[in-house]
Amino acid sequence: MSLQEQNQQLVVTERTRHRRLREQGSTEVADLDAILRAGFVCHLGVVVDGAPMVVPTVYGVDFATRTLYVHGSVASRSLVRAPDATVCVTVTHVDGLVLARSVFEHGVNYRSAMIYGVPRPVTGGEELLHGLRIVTESCAPGQWEYAREPSRKELAATSLLALPLAEASVKTASGPPQDGDGPDGELGLWAGVVPVRTYFDAPEPDPALPAGIAVPPHVAALGAGGPGS
Amino acid sequence: MSLQEQNQQLVVTERTRHRRLREQGSTEVADLDAILRAGFVCHLGVVVDGAPMVVPTVYGVDFATRTLYVHGSVASRSLVRAPDATVCVTVTHVDGLVLARSVFEHGVNYRSAMIYGVPRPVTGGEELLHGLRIVTESCAPGQWEYAREPSRKELAATSLLALPLAEASVKTASGPPQDGDGPDGELGLWAGVVPVRTYFDAPEPDPALPAGIAVPPHVAALGAGGPGS
Repeated sequence: MSLQEQNQQLVVTERTRHRRLREQGSTEVADLDAILRAGFVCHLGVVVDGAPMVVPTVYGVDFATRTLYVHGSVASRSLVRAPDATVCVTVTHVDGLVLARSVFEHGVNYRSAMIYGVPRPVTGGEELLHGLRIVTESCAPGQWEYAREPSRKELAATSLLALPLAEASVKTASGPPQDGDGPDGELGLWAGVVPVRTYFDAPEPDPALPAGIAVPPHVAALGAGGPGS
Repeated sequence: MSLQEQNQQLVVTERTRHRRLREQGSTEVADLDAILRAGFVCHLGVVVDGAPMVVPTVYGVDFATRTLYVHGSVASRSLVRAPDATVCVTVTHVDGLVLARSVFEHGVNYRSAMIYGVPRPVTGGEELLHGLRIVTESCAPGQWEYAREPSRKELAATSLLALPLAEASVKTASGPPQDGDGPDGELGLWAGVVPVRTYFDAPEPDPALPAGIAVPPHVAALGAGGPGS
């Protein structure tokens, strides 16, 4: 296997190996990246006192260094208690409800990525500023240049986790229900997919905003794309 | 405290106690229920070999018995390995991107519920049928009556987890950015919220569907509400 091929395929470990049938696993790095690019909210799983804790938080990816930055004080708190602990970051986009003829064949179309690793806390220095920029730009491209950058005091109150995109699992499900061929296809029942769409609606100005400050182009442009798209 | 008041407030434990400021915690049972009713996909956190695993899956709630049913073979597999293990089920609705004048005040408006507990596997009998009905109706009300019910063989291949809605934490963030009052309000920068909306789009019939089978009313009605709404 050439180096290039290695770079394009995810390494499979015991916990990222795919087992199920209907849902499709992928080891393509491009699939992982597409899922990560399409969102800005992840669910971060940590173990606290032996029990799992799953917290929604924002993230961003530096694709040049293949580093995922996760924001959140909750995560930091758990990290302090267990600095070498593995975390699991899951990003999910729900694409549709699969309504089959039989209850058994019902499902959800989705794209999901799980990233495992021992995160490195980023609590200061150039990397904190860099990571915050990555996370901010992941939410709203152009916003980092537009908004006021964090002060030294604000940076001291901010922490990120950095996680390499090294051990990851991608799962997707798509397409129509699969019970049209068998005897259930003769039942005369409707079957299909009800798509789930997520989009950015028109920006709502802060009521405290003075008159005459227009929505900047990079914010107006958000509506053209949208999370999960 | 009267029984009624007890029923309406969540019991606070060490791990469900709220610590942060901007994000608002709630101990209202009504807030928990509203978040659970508004969705059908959760993130299930389990501990496998000491590491957290966070898996997206579908859920439904029986509000009469206050039992949350979670679907998923992954969960079952981890349960077999650790039958008495606590899980964490998190349901999150992303409502908007909060763009402030300063990067530090940026955030996400959301509603989120975390439920902790030791789940009970439901692998057969009347409760499995009941739980599947709850999960199916949570996704698409009316669909259980419409579709073919599971056969005995299909039930044998299905498992659910049942989790009491006993230990739960609710967190929400809403409203405009909060840096309009201080010096940042003088920067002349636009600030506000970009709402994130999620909806059901028009149903897409299975290509294998014979001509003449119309979308049933309960499926057409999905577009009126939508997940996360």
